[in-house]
Amino acid sequence: MKYVYSFGAGKADGSAGDKNLLGGKGANLAEMTSLGIPVPPGFTITTDVCTIFMQNRSYPDGLEKAVKDALHKMETVMGQKFGDSKNPLLVSVRSGARQSMPGMMETVLNVGLTESTVQGLIKKSGNERFVYDAYRRLITMYADVVIEKAGGIEPAEGEGIRELLEKELAQMKTDRKVESDTDLSAADLKQLITIYKKLIKSRLGVEFPDDAYAQLWGGIDAVFTSWNGKRAVNYRRIENIPDEWGTAVNVQAMVFGNMGDDCATGVAFTRNPATGENQFYGEWLPNAQGEDVVAGIRTPNPLNNANKTAHTAHLASLEEAMPGLYAELDAIQERLEKHYRDMQDIEFTIQEGRLWMLQTRTGKRNGTAALRMAVDMVDEGMIDSSTAVSRVAPDQLDEIMHTMIDPKAEKAGKLLATGLPAGPGGGTGQIVFTADDAERWKSEGKAVVLVRAETSPEDIHGMHAAEAILTAKGGMTSHAALVARGWGKCCIVGCAELNINAGKKTLTVGKETYGEGDWISLNGTKGEVYAGQLDLIDPDLESNRYFTQLLKWADEIRRLDVRTNADTPADAALARSFGARGIGLCRTEHMFFDPQRILAMRKMIVADNDTDRRAAVMELLPFQKADFYGILKAMAPNPVTIRLLDPPLHEFLPQTPAQITELSLMLQIPEDILHKRIDGLHELNPMLGHRGCRLGISYPEITEMQARAIFEATVDLISDGEKPFPEVMIPLVGSVRELADQKTIVNRVAQEVQEERGYRFDYLVGTMIELPRACVTADEIASEAQFFSFGTNDLTQTTFGFSRDDIGSFLPKYLKERILANDPFQSIDQQGVGALLKLGVQKGRETKANLKIGVCGEHGGDPASIHFFHKAGLDYVSCSPYRVPIARLAAAQAVLSEN
Amino acid sequence: MKYVYSFGAGKADGSAGDKNLLGGKGANLAEMTSLGIPVPPGFTITTDVCTIFMQNRSYPDGLEKAVKDALHKMETVMGQKFGDSKNPLLVSVRSGARQSMPGMMETVLNVGLTESTVQGLIKKSGNERFVYDAYRRLITMYADVVIEKAGGIEPAEGEGIRELLEKELAQMKTDRKVESDTDLSAADLKQLITIYKKLIKSRLGVEFPDDAYAQLWGGIDAVFTSWNGKRAVNYRRIENIPDEWGTAVNVQAMVFGNMGDDCATGVAFTRNPATGENQFYGEWLPNAQGEDVVAGIRTPNPLNNANKTAHTAHLASLEEAMPGLYAELDAIQERLEKHYRDMQDIEFTIQEGRLWMLQTRTGKRNGTAALRMAVDMVDEGMIDSSTAVSRVAPDQLDEIMHTMIDPKAEKAGKLLATGLPAGPGGGTGQIVFTADDAERWKSEGKAVVLVRAETSPEDIHGMHAAEAILTAKGGMTSHAALVARGWGKCCIVGCAELNINAGKKTLTVGKETYGEGDWISLNGTKGEVYAGQLDLIDPDLESNRYFTQLLKWADEIRRLDVRTNADTPADAALARSFGARGIGLCRTEHMFFDPQRILAMRKMIVADNDTDRRAAVMELLPFQKADFYGILKAMAPNPVTIRLLDPPLHEFLPQTPAQITELSLMLQIPEDILHKRIDGLHELNPMLGHRGCRLGISYPEITEMQARAIFEATVDLISDGEKPFPEVMIPLVGSVRELADQKTIVNRVAQEVQEERGYRFDYLVGTMIELPRACVTADEIASEAQFFSFGTNDLTQTTFGFSRDDIGSFLPKYLKERILANDPFQSIDQQGVGALLKLGVQKGRETKANLKIGVCGEHGGDPASIHFFHKAGLDYVSCSPYRVPIARLAAAQAVLSEN
Repeated sequence: MKYVYSFGAGKADGSAGDKNLLGGKGANLAEMTSLGIPVPPGFTITTDVCTIFMQNRSYPDGLEKAVKDALHKMETVMGQKFGDSKNPLLVSVRSGARQSMPGMMETVLNVGLTESTVQGLIKKSGNERFVYDAYRRLITMYADVVIEKAGGIEPAEGEGIRELLEKELAQMKTDRKVESDTDLSAADLKQLITIYKKLIKSRLGVEFPDDAYAQLWGGIDAVFTSWNGKRAVNYRRIENIPDEWGTAVNVQAMVFGNMGDDCATGVAFTRNPATGENQFYGEWLPNAQGEDVVAGIRTPNPLNNANKTAHTAHLASLEEAMPGLYAELDAIQERLEKHYRDMQDIEFTIQEGRLWMLQTRTGKRNGTAALRMAVDMVDEGMIDSSTAVSRVAPDQLDEIMHTMIDPKAEKAGKLLATGLPAGPGGGTGQIVFTADDAERWKSEGKAVVLVRAETSPEDIHGMHAAEAILTAKGGMTSHAALVARGWGKCCIVGCAELNINAGKKTLTVGKETYGEGDWISLNGTKGEVYAGQLDLIDPDLESNRYFTQLLKWADEIRRLDVRTNADTPADAALARSFGARGIGLCRTEHMFFDPQRILAMRKMIVADNDTDRRAAVMELLPFQKADFYGILKAMAPNPVTIRLLDPPLHEFLPQTPAQITELSLMLQIPEDILHKRIDGLHELNPMLGHRGCRLGISYPEITEMQARAIFEATVDLISDGEKPFPEVMIPLVGSVRELADQKTIVNRVAQEVQEERGYRFDYLVGTMIELPRACVTADEIASEAQFFSFGTNDLTQTTFGFSRDDIGSFLPKYLKERILANDPFQSIDQQGVGALLKLGVQKGRETKANLKIGVCGEHGGDPASIHFFHKAGLDYVSCSPYRVPIARLAAAQAVLSEN
Repeated sequence: MKYVYSFGAGKADGSAGDKNLLGGKGANLAEMTSLGIPVPPGFTITTDVCTIFMQNRSYPDGLEKAVKDALHKMETVMGQKFGDSKNPLLVSVRSGARQSMPGMMETVLNVGLTESTVQGLIKKSGNERFVYDAYRRLITMYADVVIEKAGGIEPAEGEGIRELLEKELAQMKTDRKVESDTDLSAADLKQLITIYKKLIKSRLGVEFPDDAYAQLWGGIDAVFTSWNGKRAVNYRRIENIPDEWGTAVNVQAMVFGNMGDDCATGVAFTRNPATGENQFYGEWLPNAQGEDVVAGIRTPNPLNNANKTAHTAHLASLEEAMPGLYAELDAIQERLEKHYRDMQDIEFTIQEGRLWMLQTRTGKRNGTAALRMAVDMVDEGMIDSSTAVSRVAPDQLDEIMHTMIDPKAEKAGKLLATGLPAGPGGGTGQIVFTADDAERWKSEGKAVVLVRAETSPEDIHGMHAAEAILTAKGGMTSHAALVARGWGKCCIVGCAELNINAGKKTLTVGKETYGEGDWISLNGTKGEVYAGQLDLIDPDLESNRYFTQLLKWADEIRRLDVRTNADTPADAALARSFGARGIGLCRTEHMFFDPQRILAMRKMIVADNDTDRRAAVMELLPFQKADFYGILKAMAPNPVTIRLLDPPLHEFLPQTPAQITELSLMLQIPEDILHKRIDGLHELNPMLGHRGCRLGISYPEITEMQARAIFEATVDLISDGEKPFPEVMIPLVGSVRELADQKTIVNRVAQEVQEERGYRFDYLVGTMIELPRACVTADEIASEAQFFSFGTNDLTQTTFGFSRDDIGSFLPKYLKERILANDPFQSIDQQGVGALLKLGVQKGRETKANLKIGVCGEHGGDPASIHFFHKAGLDYVSCSPYRVPIARLAAAQAVLSEN
């Protein structure tokens, strides 16, 4: 077994393909070396060694010799000798896991500096201050990382060795009356080093080792040990990185960008990571170390002239300062990008006029840049369209589809509170506290933000009028969140810091109070609430050829159809413009909250006999017919799945005594009878109560009216030359006889309407699969169903026994302690809910091999869930209009991930 | 294919084994004939013919000839001729299905009487009145059954032909100024017949056929047609009898018990069906027809002297009146019982001094009789003990385990209302309307019935004090029902006719009002509420050797263990006396409602920091420890499964403003803060909310305290020389990490207690499987569980998406329209919930082949469900104490039914 992989001087034992063994960093260093790119020589100790070390707390036989041999190779390349007092080689010891875990593990730099090598290096470099500074840094890192952390010492709060050493440094600066570290002289640093060493001995009981090899092995131990450090373990839990992967250790010759004016350091991207423009982009600092660029103490210089801004125009670019080296760097970056066929994030150091590449890796980018790069690289012939499709994270599309707060304004803004990011995008407006106020202010031309403890269906008109919605309660699938997401409206929910007094019309956060008419701004993508009116930036989708092109490619790849959840013609048209080909869920209940209709609805509910109930229900027919006409037309000839009435009837009834009195007068029903009826409808667990098809079975006239409205609208459309295609969906079916009962009514009405009107039309009758029992008995249910649509929201509720409205009391702790990996209402629980779904698909198709099966829960717009649905063999997903492009992309990526 | 099976004169084509083909009646007539028992000759048309007739509305070729041939055989045996004007044979035409469907299908008697045969029969019998009466009866039955019903005529309400004919009969009696039918003369009857025939022609448009064969085929048609009559179809739905079974038709020579004083008729049982005593038991009437005995117009005579009571001592027994024939009958009944090896229900007729047996079938019996007969027959060597065990329906044990209202008193009582039979047995007491009153009155030595709209955990003490409980709301698994059943207490719930005014302390039913202190009596087995104080009969279990013996045999047969659900030492002891070997569910929450404890509980709930919460929780430790000491001791060395705290915390909080004010003072917490905390705990769907293990994860100190109480009690018991065996059950687990989290705490505490006290003890940690996700991921959960206990109540709720508390609004319609075959909370839904259970068992045992698995939902005491659990391979069922014997018997029958 080979434990150590060398690289240097154009030759490397490993390559980019060895990431599992060498970690990402080590594999890329090897690859760059082989490409002939100047990389400081070094070697990588494999992840296998980490595993052995973790298991046995000791290294395998032969490792020591292999390390020594590899070190000798480095010495040969560098012409230096490790631990040599005349011409010492210094090395860095860094971690490098298969997957990047930024900042989670430890690093020791400048390893190899001892009392004797320090002197040698001073002589050789002629720069005493530089050498003592490097020594000071080594001692600090070593004491912290190797002696304290890897030694398992747990200091009291604020008494970590690093903090104590930093205090001494600060004290020295005070004593010397200087501001900056760089103002300390070599003598100061030398004195400081003496103080450091004493402090380490007295505090940690161990001497700082004055032996290069001891330092090296200490560093290696510490890096391996840090794999099981608290931070790293937590990070792995969150990112689902297996413990057994382990980390590699990279030992590499030190190069210094801070040895003088012919030195420099910098970080760069092969293309602009914010815009995607194909322009070498980066920052550098003369006479500095890498950490100085990142730390942000000094404003870094622009890498080249094209990078200059008004802000940085006065600073010398590397292109200007070191044109030859810049040209060399530019050639290297171009080679790296072409080699890796993706935008690279690189680090470099210039030591005494010589360029060294320290790292290359795939660069992070925002949504706009990801899109542009993906499409550009196809145009440039660098990648094919499938690769382009796989390069953009679906959620990155979200960034470019919504109005956003201008990042500059946001940076300067005053953050008030943070809640759950329920509806992405940005919004700004004047605070209002009621739906009616929102509507009135809007009609006066004002922009408003509706602020409520929580919203209910009665607030719909105000939510629609508002630029953004902010609630103190509720989760990601609360009423406000669902409605806002459907409209693509900016929305933040569950913002517990808010203290809302709707009566007094005040909003208090901490000690500050805001009233009606005060401006606030919301970043719904992050869940952040700002004071005041911040500037917004509009998306420019139409002209975004990158967006259109990428999704066109995605459409060519994907197998899943994408539909939308939409309740209005406007939403249907919007979703269609985003690429939806059909409606997977048209809820019919929101239609009833319109003031014109709610009275008939309530009359229906409080009726105490079939005749009155039927009469009241039939009052709703013309309204529903008009609704369905519009929505079927907007989506024709694509299918529209219309779900029959689902929520429990009490949701439609007034709640306050005043409203009940009013209703009593309007319906001419005595108040006590009305109260009794309302009380009678009260349920302890409405989620598990009298709703879904149970309503249609109890009150067949509701089903009849809805079926008639759908089919009369269908006939009207046909006679108007359209090609509507309705799919009637029976909700909350748990046993086949429920479906059969409702289907009989729907088919009878369809027959009647066809005979009455003399038109034939096509339609389907199917069911929502949203109860565990429906999954388990899907073979029977399929015998009566023409399609299945999984309602994964409710299926998640019943499978887990979680109420969406009530999980706030324990879910945060569940996620924090990793009892659950994810919120199952956000991304489908593949193991539990998903297993039931798969069972339902399998059993359904046992009965009907070609049964059309889709999903219409919120998960239909979640990329991870879409991958699962693809694998489960569904025919389509349906999601809110603004998630449609995301779903199209995710569906394509699901296909690509199969290869 | 043979369509017609003859029997008569000691020879029969069929036998008792041909029930599927000949129906129960036909098969037994054939069997009796073959045994040499005098049976009037006849023939049976097979059920196959019924199927053909239903499909084609016509008979198969050859049937007509076969019927004629069979009729000729009858003629030969009887020495009479069908349709002959001199010596006519009369026949009956009766249905006879595979399974008895009493009264659901049609019969025509006296077939073969025409104008000419009537004259022949008069001459032959010399009894004109008898013949015209028989003719009148034939015409009535024929018009009703053959012409009207089988003809598909649907008369208006009250205008059925039978009713119209009865009116004419009544009119004739009025005209003749006589009271009874028998007072009408032959001439009167003759006149009536003329009226009848005219009325039939004018009303139904058809002549009554004056042809024997036409009558016979009309009768056969009508019986087959009645298989698909409304009543029969509904009955089959309810009893789950397949439509395709069909009925046979039995045509048999008429014999008459009403031709004179040498005639008689009777029904009898080979043993007493009420007591089980081995004593020939029955009733007879001289000169009467079978229907007269059943109709109850005349008081029937006792069959023999042993049957005589004070009431019937003056009536001549058959033994006295016709000693020879009685001896013959007695010999036959003995033969029949021995032949069938079971108690027989027989019908006989004596015509002109000759005994004819008309029917034998297995006799129905009550619980007491079933038990005694089963055991006696084993003692007599008639059957083996397995057969005895299979002879008693588990629910029949219920009858003999509870105090009952004396049937005589009940018969005379005044029925006020009917509700759901939630707790079997009888109870009587004075009405009280609050739990506190119940307790106080009881302490004054009074017997009370607690009457409430519904009960809550706060009523426990009053429910315990009451003789019986009556509620207006709630279903079979409501709080009142569950608690009462656990205690074996008489209880009626969901008695919607009651109008309870708790404020005024009145109970109104219809127009009658009862107040506090008024007596009422409840039959909880039937759900009937009576006015006044009715006499009760106590069960006498201890001395019931039949009960003990039968269950001993059952125990030898069954594979399932039987445990009990019990929360107190008293319940545990009771259940143990009923044969429970362990506790399958000990709920710990009921213990918290005790006034001494509830305050600490509430303190814990409203605590806003961990320190206060822990302090409050620990106040509960001594109480819980004492509870567990008692219950573990009562069941030692059998296992006791203790479920950790399960219900949502808000159930423990006060509800009314006054109670909140009181609590605020006691806890010295400002009222507004208390209100806020209570509001914060409010949940929209508490069933799916913050409960079960979610509590223990949020508040680990609760788990810790409960574990400590259990283990300290365990150690105390060991040091007292007992052998306790606790099993700690984590409720509402949906994913393995929940279980792992709680198990860690329990195991840590177990370790601590063992170290502190220096004792080792055994215990298990397992989980309740009551969520669909737990079933689907049972393989993972099993890796952390030492046992599974299915909580089928909650599993039913989540699988169906039904809330037990809320199904009242639609379940009745579901059952009525057969959308569901049964209330799934009463008997497990094998197809849906059961499929998930089986999946859970299979997956659990994939991980741990010997995993102990039980069930602790209410279904554990339901015989049909127990059969299912047996087949699913569970190790035990657990049920309320009074269901334990039922479960033992059902478990044995499950084994027997496998053969």
